[in-house]
Amino acid sequence: MTVLAENGLDGLSIRHVAAEAGISIGGVQHHFASKDELLVAASQHVTDLFKDLAIKQTQPILVKEGPKAAFLTFCQLLANSGPDTAHGERGTTPSVVWLWFAAQATKPGNVADAFTAAWRETEDYLHGVIVELFPYCDASEEAAYLLALLDGLAVARATEPARMPPIRARSIIQSHFRRLDAHQIADLQ
Amino acid sequence: MTVLAENGLDGLSIRHVAAEAGISIGGVQHHFASKDELLVAASQHVTDLFKDLAIKQTQPILVKEGPKAAFLTFCQLLANSGPDTAHGERGTTPSVVWLWFAAQATKPGNVADAFTAAWRETEDYLHGVIVELFPYCDASEEAAYLLALLDGLAVARATEPARMPPIRARSIIQSHFRRLDAHQIADLQ
Repeated sequence: MTVLAENGLDGLSIRHVAAEAGISIGGVQHHFASKDELLVAASQHVTDLFKDLAIKQTQPILVKEGPKAAFLTFCQLLANSGPDTAHGERGTTPSVVWLWFAAQATKPGNVADAFTAAWRETEDYLHGVIVELFPYCDASEEAAYLLALLDGLAVARATEPARMPPIRARSIIQSHFRRLDAHQIADLQ
Repeated sequence: MTVLAENGLDGLSIRHVAAEAGISIGGVQHHFASKDELLVAASQHVTDLFKDLAIKQTQPILVKEGPKAAFLTFCQLLANSGPDTAHGERGTTPSVVWLWFAAQATKPGNVADAFTAAWRETEDYLHGVIVELFPYCDASEEAAYLLALLDGLAVARATEPARMPPIRARSIIQSHFRRLDAHQIADLQ
């Protein structure tokens, strides 16, 4: 993962990964038949780390401030802009891995299939939460709308951390939530 | 550009580009010293095509329906979701080139500098239009918010054209505009 974030896909050679992981080239080749498989595995690793982080960071907020505040934090984490996200290079690593994953997913194949499945699942998850928390919205449209916004923020975090520091991204997501709330009120009147 | 969209960065060899352009390998090498330069040039080409298309498609709308309708069309074009965008592979080409450009821009260098400059310019442009059309908004936040949304939609258009057909992206951008308008009304009250 570190290799991918620092060197990009061109730098993602079997030799590099073996060196980073401190294992033999044969050991890496045993696990991953191709760069694409390595990329799918790296993205899966980022996803797993994200799920652990999301549970750890949203659980106390859910208890203290309720489900809407917890969902806000979840969305900020998805845009790699959580309260504890570092400003530096390391802080953008998950977004960088995700962006390579997305770029590679523009070609048909294993990477594209994995990406499409992961993003459909994410949209479905957002859809379910929006139905619960913002019942007067068009949840189908709002899920895709929110996901596009978070994806765009994640791209900016990965490519332009100076233009898009975490605090700016968090503020934008908060605005979006205020609008979802306002939408509820408008529809109830 | 076609080579990049169909084969990705791995497939972007000097040989491929020469074959596609119908010129000699020496001819390509004469123009581009590296893949990075080729990528910057391809992105510049997409940007130039985009500007031509944007002027051609928004000018009649500006005259007939006014500046807000023209800006809406401009934003839909930026998300590669204009009214005339094809559903198929060809229709996603500009987004695919842009996504490779973004992924490569995560590494410091010429590509990153070109990407950062282009996106700052785009945000500044959106900022100027928002100040004119939605004067009661926080234009600085709204410009970054809108750009993130359009970028996220462009990623979805490039990677998941089935989940994000142009009509769905256009509907989301229209919702965003309705909210910008609602915001104006709320602040005026």
